[in-house]
Amino acid sequence: MNDTLHAMRHSLAHIMAAAVQRLWPEAKFGIGPVVENGFYYDIDLGETKISEQEFKTIERVMRQIICEKQDFEHFTLPIDEAIEWALEKGQPYKAELLNDLKRSGTTVAKELDANEMGTIAEAGAAVDTVGFYRNGDFVDLCRGPHVENTKDVGVFKLMRVAGAYWRGNEKNPQMQRLYGVAFATKEELDAHLYMLEEAKKRDHRKLGRDLDLYTVSPLVGVGLPMFTPRGTVLRDMVAQYSNQLRQSYGFEKVWTPHITKKELYEASGHWAKFGEELFLVKSQETSDEMALKPMNCPHHTQIYASRPRSYRDMPVRYLETTTDYRDEKTGELGGLNRVRSLTQDDSHVFCRPDQIEQEINNLLGAAGELYQTIGMKLRVRLSYRDDSEAYLGDLELWQSAQSQLKSAVEANGLEYFEQEGEAAFYGPKIDFMATDAIGREHQVATVQLDFVQPERFGLEYTAEGGDMAQPVMIHCALLGSVERFLSVFIEHTGGWFPFWAAPEQLRILTINDTVLDYVSDIKSVLAETVLMTPVKYSELRYTVDSRNESLGKKIREATSMKIPVQLIVGPKDKEAGEVSIRTQSGEEKLRLSQLGDYLKSM
Amino acid sequence: MNDTLHAMRHSLAHIMAAAVQRLWPEAKFGIGPVVENGFYYDIDLGETKISEQEFKTIERVMRQIICEKQDFEHFTLPIDEAIEWALEKGQPYKAELLNDLKRSGTTVAKELDANEMGTIAEAGAAVDTVGFYRNGDFVDLCRGPHVENTKDVGVFKLMRVAGAYWRGNEKNPQMQRLYGVAFATKEELDAHLYMLEEAKKRDHRKLGRDLDLYTVSPLVGVGLPMFTPRGTVLRDMVAQYSNQLRQSYGFEKVWTPHITKKELYEASGHWAKFGEELFLVKSQETSDEMALKPMNCPHHTQIYASRPRSYRDMPVRYLETTTDYRDEKTGELGGLNRVRSLTQDDSHVFCRPDQIEQEINNLLGAAGELYQTIGMKLRVRLSYRDDSEAYLGDLELWQSAQSQLKSAVEANGLEYFEQEGEAAFYGPKIDFMATDAIGREHQVATVQLDFVQPERFGLEYTAEGGDMAQPVMIHCALLGSVERFLSVFIEHTGGWFPFWAAPEQLRILTINDTVLDYVSDIKSVLAETVLMTPVKYSELRYTVDSRNESLGKKIREATSMKIPVQLIVGPKDKEAGEVSIRTQSGEEKLRLSQLGDYLKSM
Repeated sequence: MNDTLHAMRHSLAHIMAAAVQRLWPEAKFGIGPVVENGFYYDIDLGETKISEQEFKTIERVMRQIICEKQDFEHFTLPIDEAIEWALEKGQPYKAELLNDLKRSGTTVAKELDANEMGTIAEAGAAVDTVGFYRNGDFVDLCRGPHVENTKDVGVFKLMRVAGAYWRGNEKNPQMQRLYGVAFATKEELDAHLYMLEEAKKRDHRKLGRDLDLYTVSPLVGVGLPMFTPRGTVLRDMVAQYSNQLRQSYGFEKVWTPHITKKELYEASGHWAKFGEELFLVKSQETSDEMALKPMNCPHHTQIYASRPRSYRDMPVRYLETTTDYRDEKTGELGGLNRVRSLTQDDSHVFCRPDQIEQEINNLLGAAGELYQTIGMKLRVRLSYRDDSEAYLGDLELWQSAQSQLKSAVEANGLEYFEQEGEAAFYGPKIDFMATDAIGREHQVATVQLDFVQPERFGLEYTAEGGDMAQPVMIHCALLGSVERFLSVFIEHTGGWFPFWAAPEQLRILTINDTVLDYVSDIKSVLAETVLMTPVKYSELRYTVDSRNESLGKKIREATSMKIPVQLIVGPKDKEAGEVSIRTQSGEEKLRLSQLGDYLKSM
Repeated sequence: MNDTLHAMRHSLAHIMAAAVQRLWPEAKFGIGPVVENGFYYDIDLGETKISEQEFKTIERVMRQIICEKQDFEHFTLPIDEAIEWALEKGQPYKAELLNDLKRSGTTVAKELDANEMGTIAEAGAAVDTVGFYRNGDFVDLCRGPHVENTKDVGVFKLMRVAGAYWRGNEKNPQMQRLYGVAFATKEELDAHLYMLEEAKKRDHRKLGRDLDLYTVSPLVGVGLPMFTPRGTVLRDMVAQYSNQLRQSYGFEKVWTPHITKKELYEASGHWAKFGEELFLVKSQETSDEMALKPMNCPHHTQIYASRPRSYRDMPVRYLETTTDYRDEKTGELGGLNRVRSLTQDDSHVFCRPDQIEQEINNLLGAAGELYQTIGMKLRVRLSYRDDSEAYLGDLELWQSAQSQLKSAVEANGLEYFEQEGEAAFYGPKIDFMATDAIGREHQVATVQLDFVQPERFGLEYTAEGGDMAQPVMIHCALLGSVERFLSVFIEHTGGWFPFWAAPEQLRILTINDTVLDYVSDIKSVLAETVLMTPVKYSELRYTVDSRNESLGKKIREATSMKIPVQLIVGPKDKEAGEVSIRTQSGEEKLRLSQLGDYLKSM
């Protein structure tokens, strides 16, 4: 978000508070920050509850304030005077903030910043003076910046009101958090509102239910979705595509169990760093201390280490699509977006340092191919180290690796930006962001160099001269987590999956029973039609609806299940040796002999 | 084992003890039971250690006792006289057993029986009298039965000696357990010894290493094998075959996570029954009590229950090949035979009671087809309930189900035997036993009816009349556990996997570099050759060995990796447009144009 837009949204938060104050002079204000796409303000109105019915009224008063063309004026007050101001105005929350600021200014400011809850004081500001802004008769403790005048705030819309505890603590009073969105132009606002409307229709939790893709059981637990036959086809097609693609890029499948003794993570260093985020596994028969794997790299190092390797064997490329477990907080779990059982399409390359660029190139090729098939535009972030001491591994190796990453990204013609200080402590990385059909950007694939695990596990290979050398590891997941990818894919497609991925690709709808023998002929054609791309050797998945129901009803049902191809078969089709094809792009007639090729080209 | 053979083996245990007593008169004896294929005796010789070098000597004395044609004579003694006898003869272990018998006869006898450790007293015998057998000057506390005379014991061979704690308790003295095998005829003994020799060569742990199929890491833990690229191909081919086969029998894939809240197992009843055998999973972020799944049925019930079902939807058939976790004692783990991470090719049918026979028939068809492909002969055990109170569910449903199981087994022409009292508490079952290439029988597939889980989970469907009815569940695994199946499959084939399953199916061995362009032609043929059976759409897996090494070395290496097809390519082959094929059954020449069909027919 650019600075102007930020100032607009911040100013609208003040204008909204001013409007609320005009309507309910007793209103007590908390904080009112800028958030993604808009702003909010936390307000205490005592027993009075704002409902969506009042949004129109509040918006009218806001527009009035905008028409009044009030200037935003900055001024400062000594902290004690500020406290006096707050008490006098009956603003206990502001008084509390000011008292905290007085006691430990920087800390409070940071706390509020960290929670995205406030913009009330400059971090590190001297606690003896605080900043205010005034527009009209509304005054607020604030560090700005604002637009110059209330007329300069662009266009906005109030969206919703929700309960929020003061300072996020459930022991504090509950306030009303009033949300709005705002943009510089009406076009941008409309586009955003359209996107929200679309996102609601495409919500993968709703589509997951309607299209019978997955289920969640309270007995099994949240964040542990189970996939129905339809959903399993979808996950298999996507995972199989990623597997076949990686195999075509030289990766070999391996298999590892979902648990390990903690010794593996002590060796890798994960135990010390992430031990508290693991699901611990307790053996009742032995004294083994174990954990569910949250990632697969340490297991894969053990396969690499299971036999001697020579420079001629390098690179060694493993792939495994396997389920990892992460102990996410239950409140953060929902649908497929964030789960406790995440299936990664994980890959690990063990290569010589001089092979890094070639291997990155290889992975960029695979990622590019995959997202082109999915129909999502990619851009990447190159995350480098900075000058701090936080990074492990040889500096020269880092620098060489970072420049190899960049060359590979440029050679692949990918849109990219660079960020220093965003690397993991064990190596630089590339994060892939994909834009969906309604303009939202999702982080998907990653490619991550690793100089540390090879050392911790003592991995080696015999170099050309006969000495032992240490390989570099490259971690990569193309889909990322299959579950999270599906949440994106479902919303990206709105449940109208591409033909190759659809759980039920085709449904034959009969007009009456006189065509049943012709349906057999059609089925013979379908049985011989095997798709070769993007997933190789994919037999058609179809059903026949020959119930004694009206065609209209059959079409409605097939359409509500978002079946990409409907074949309508009536006596005339039979006579002519044709089929009537109904897809999202319309209807057409084909000779039966052309059907196979038509479907293969979808 | 028949009664005569049992008596022979039991008598040989006495004869062996008598021989040891002649050689080492100070020997103190524990117990000497019959075991599979033979017998053993636990002996305390103080500091003297029997080594395999002494087997010849002991066997010679045994044969002498046999030549002496001693009768086995039964007699009884009052318990106190028996104790006196033991003390007088310096046999403290016998004295201990007798004292225990005197104190709590039946219990001790049962304890010993249960451990297959003794045949010393009739269970339930009055503790005031115990039985003895005498042959020559050797007397032993024993309940028999024996052969009449030492000349009637068949043929035998001492096999090994191992340490064994008295009564299996490591706090007791360690004795020497001397093992022998015995059969009625020399032919049977030779066959058994040959089988042992073969089994040693085929040991899947040895082949697993030599053929680079899997690895075990002390950091990950025992019983948690990891599969290398070669081993992963093997497991995938076998699992994919089971999946495709079941899909062709009407099953649909589903997917469930590897963990669950314990509530699921409280509802199923597993928590109360098997709670102590589960791997417990501890969430550090929440208070959820969870477990790793040891089976998949409770998860699958939740998918069934996720939407309303009608009688028209039945049967609902799910398949999932997924890894379950069982907390086996570490001492029992080894190779792939018994693991903590076992991947089941699990299936669950939810059907109406009147569909049981049809569904069992379906599953028998699938199992028969699978083991015919694998080349193993099947026989089945029908496990029924008995009259006890141990079984849940309606008696009439049990009886109808048992007779449906039997009809289905008979209709499929399967060799079978019936056992009352072997059913699970929740339903009758069919266990499949498969005989391997060296005559060993392994328990593999199971088909298990279940009347209890549908009730516990309140599963239902709308019956034809509109009332709600309860489905029956059928559990089935064809391979059983993929890992255990692989241990059998590796030993059954001795690592010479059938062409369709071999990790590397074919290797091209060049005689010199003049044929490299011809190798390209061969590769084009191989790339177009896709196997369709037993696994559909299986592309060939091959490598080219074009190193500058002798053909002899290349052949030796390919043979040691047990690659089923070696294509030897020299200048003459190139000139003639031929390939020289080398398999286990010999060598032959083919025109290149015939190669594809030849491989497809393997």
